[in-house]
Amino acid sequence: MDLNADLGEGFGIWRLGDDLALLDIVTSANVACGFHAGDPATMRRVCLAAAQRGVAVGAQVGYRDLAGFGRRRIEYDPGELRDEVIYQIAALDGMCRVAGTRVRYVKPHGALYNTAAVDEPQATAVVSAVTDYDRTLPVLCQPGSVLARIATGAGLRVVGEGFADRGYRPTGALVPRAAPQALVTAEAEVAERALKMAVERVVVAVDGSTIACPVESICLHGDTPAAVDLARRVRTALTEAGLHVAPFA
Amino acid sequence: MDLNADLGEGFGIWRLGDDLALLDIVTSANVACGFHAGDPATMRRVCLAAAQRGVAVGAQVGYRDLAGFGRRRIEYDPGELRDEVIYQIAALDGMCRVAGTRVRYVKPHGALYNTAAVDEPQATAVVSAVTDYDRTLPVLCQPGSVLARIATGAGLRVVGEGFADRGYRPTGALVPRAAPQALVTAEAEVAERALKMAVERVVVAVDGSTIACPVESICLHGDTPAAVDLARRVRTALTEAGLHVAPFA
Amino acid sequence: MDLNADLGEGFGIWRLGDDLALLDIVTSANVACGFHAGDPATMRRVCLAAAQRGVAVGAQVGYRDLAGFGRRRIEYDPGELRDEVIYQIAALDGMCRVAGTRVRYVKPHGALYNTAAVDEPQATAVVSAVTDYDRTLPVLCQPGSVLARIATGAGLRVVGEGFADRGYRPTGALVPRAAPQALVTAEAEVAERALKMAVERVVVAVDGSTIACPVESICLHGDTPAAVDLARRVRTALTEAGLHVAPFA
Amino acid sequence: MDLNADLGEGFGIWRLGDDLALLDIVTSANVACGFHAGDPATMRRVCLAAAQRGVAVGAQVGYRDLAGFGRRRIEYDPGELRDEVIYQIAALDGMCRVAGTRVRYVKPHGALYNTAAVDEPQATAVVSAVTDYDRTLPVLCQPGSVLARIATGAGLRVVGEGFADRGYRPTGALVPRAAPQALVTAEAEVAERALKMAVERVVVAVDGSTIACPVESICLHGDTPAAVDLARRVRTALTEAGLHVAPFA
Repeated sequence: MDLNADLGEGFGIWRLGDDLALLDIVTSANVACGFHAGDPATMRRVCLAAAQRGVAVGAQVGYRDLAGFGRRRIEYDPGELRDEVIYQIAALDGMCRVAGTRVRYVKPHGALYNTAAVDEPQATAVVSAVTDYDRTLPVLCQPGSVLARIATGAGLRVVGEGFADRGYRPTGALVPRAAPQALVTAEAEVAERALKMAVERVVVAVDGSTIACPVESICLHGDTPAAVDLARRVRTALTEAGLHVAPFA
Repeated sequence: MDLNADLGEGFGIWRLGDDLALLDIVTSANVACGFHAGDPATMRRVCLAAAQRGVAVGAQVGYRDLAGFGRRRIEYDPGELRDEVIYQIAALDGMCRVAGTRVRYVKPHGALYNTAAVDEPQATAVVSAVTDYDRTLPVLCQPGSVLARIATGAGLRVVGEGFADRGYRPTGALVPRAAPQALVTAEAEVAERALKMAVERVVVAVDGSTIACPVESICLHGDTPAAVDLARRVRTALTEAGLHVAPFA
Repeated sequence: MDLNADLGEGFGIWRLGDDLALLDIVTSANVACGFHAGDPATMRRVCLAAAQRGVAVGAQVGYRDLAGFGRRRIEYDPGELRDEVIYQIAALDGMCRVAGTRVRYVKPHGALYNTAAVDEPQATAVVSAVTDYDRTLPVLCQPGSVLARIATGAGLRVVGEGFADRGYRPTGALVPRAAPQALVTAEAEVAERALKMAVERVVVAVDGSTIACPVESICLHGDTPAAVDLARRVRTALTEAGLHVAPFA
Repeated sequence: MDLNADLGEGFGIWRLGDDLALLDIVTSANVACGFHAGDPATMRRVCLAAAQRGVAVGAQVGYRDLAGFGRRRIEYDPGELRDEVIYQIAALDGMCRVAGTRVRYVKPHGALYNTAAVDEPQATAVVSAVTDYDRTLPVLCQPGSVLARIATGAGLRVVGEGFADRGYRPTGALVPRAAPQALVTAEAEVAERALKMAVERVVVAVDGSTIACPVESICLHGDTPAAVDLARRVRTALTEAGLHVAPFA
């Protein structure tokens, strides 16, 4: 099982989360590429620290929207979006090279993640960017999403990820953040759900039913000290259960 | 002899110069990388058109300053400047790859060009970026500049460029733009000076003396229709004199 | 009757349209405020030139999206959008003050114009910005739009504008740009439609029916020399018919 | 005596310092205006909180440089710098108006502060912006600086500020940050120096001499919890000594 988290999401003087703490927990680092967050010096530093720890670096590509942190849906021209995604992957790949590693996968960020999960043109733009740049790169996304379907259809490797701290509907979709039961907050429960995902590839939905959760990676958060502690607890739960925690890439 | 010009210097809806006309004249295209100008879709389009014509693509790296078009000196931290230059080269290299070519050289733009010509920390930052990213890439710059010296010292190939439409001091330095005789405006004279640079590797300075001008490339401009006409005339003068006009890279 | 056009839509070195030519034709100038286009020096220059000609200045407020020229819909938080609109109006108002005039009205740009025409939260954000900043400012928009309705409900003066070069559906809505008959290209026809709007307050829809077009202003374009010529022709048609062409504000 | 500090220096999702804690300590808030930091929603929130506490709002104007937080010197065209400063003052003034207050003074930020202290063209640009926009606004800066001299010459009110936590040379200049004795770190000493500035208008220089320090405001910092504690301690020292702590504006 792989553990992934967003890293390098500061910009200039501003910081977000504790990159180094997370790098000692996760096995895959989704590194921001400069469009929704991330500056070249931060990208290089994070790539170097990841390389030193054997953590795989992925391109966390996002909308060009620093002010909105890439969390506002933007109605892009698909060709422009595709080229902006290529630009971001390539820029991070350069930073990886000087840090002794390479970009190993691609994961959209924020509103691009959510939009590409349901919107064919934007999903196709992301997939085209990957196939244009390097078709050996896997795409990390939600199982069953439009992005997963289109990436698979284009011959890309799709790696599904799960969210141990989010409520699931019986359909396998996440409960929207604004709805009740969107978040699982009890730490022990989050760790237990992660373990169930890793061992049995299932999750208990909000109606109590147990549904398939075919994931190779679990997404962790690190924007607060409490989030980092929870991430550490999830990893410990997995390793104490004898699971091999390692990059999927 | 090589002919180079700045290309892809629009941003979003805004355009600057006639990229396609210039690509039929020059042999090396300095393509803007998104920091002082240039957006991913434009970069890709220009790289593709260059590749189709056998024009070599260079990374025209600049300060992060869209509002000032990279023409205002900024006192960068050298490490941050180095990483921003790597980011730009890598991003353009990705665009080149999807267009069937690669970045073949690096040329600083505007205030970074002028600053790196005289300032050791910024010149070193540019050189470190190239050595970190790919030490086989030549640096296109002014002969005798601090950048040329430091790049040579670091083992990089330095390609000197001349300006047929600018006045030279007897020292080999350009006459500053604000001073008299900074510009050579008569078209025939510009073409003649270019030919002299290409054939004899000399230029006549503002005091009438003939000085060495050890260049492998001549820089042309294309921001107005008249400039494009002049660029075409320079190329014609060279080819009619039997010179082989081809990329240096 | 008032004639309005977008002005000051360059950024830094980049220019778009011929501001000075348009200022001799229109009576209201929608000046870009720096978010989708426009920089402070350009804003000041345009405001001064407008003031000298007795042209009213309006705040052409847009999304924070230089790369997309404000033409891509963005799903803003309404409170953030409202505050960004206030910021833009206030910044332009400052430029107007130093140029000897004031902001006289507000007109949304591009995707914000289109979105506020149909979307309540964004329309409300624009209206709240105006009521917060200065409730004596009129809003220039399409008659019958959601923005017009909400602005009217908030007690703001609404000024309707017409498009002499666009096709209208019998409902009064514009034919979308991608559909057939979206554009009226024959110059004489555009001038005639403008005259009909000004004199009779009607327009002939694409099905041949004559519908009400209750407008106080006609929107002209100036992004090409031909567009400027057409704008001039429309003004001439109105003045030769004895109409008084003057700012609505 | 007035106490001032920089506030509202986040951008989008990113935060810097504890604005609300500082607003309970200082009497003047230098609010970032969106060019080096600050977004409209943050500006409005800070202006409202300041107005509610009777804290005066000043425009903390800076270079257009989010990536460098306005801390890198940029060689601006003076006219462009002047207009960017007007734009920032006006935008913040609009936010103040909707929050029930107005901009009461202007203080340059970071590299603009340092440059305008020694460079005539940039100091003149700042002064021209204030005289163009509203010549009743005081300029908060270092006594003896070029900015202070030019502002005085232009008829503006100049308010001098002191730094209780910085070493002073016998000339009255600050010891540069990179030099020894640049910073005073002992909390008790900082409070004592502030008191001496407030009561006697003097400071002890690094050579032990006592020099004049003609200030009406003391600059405090709030970027760390320790800095906020120190700021509170300075205020307490002043009020316990019976001094009236109030805005200068």
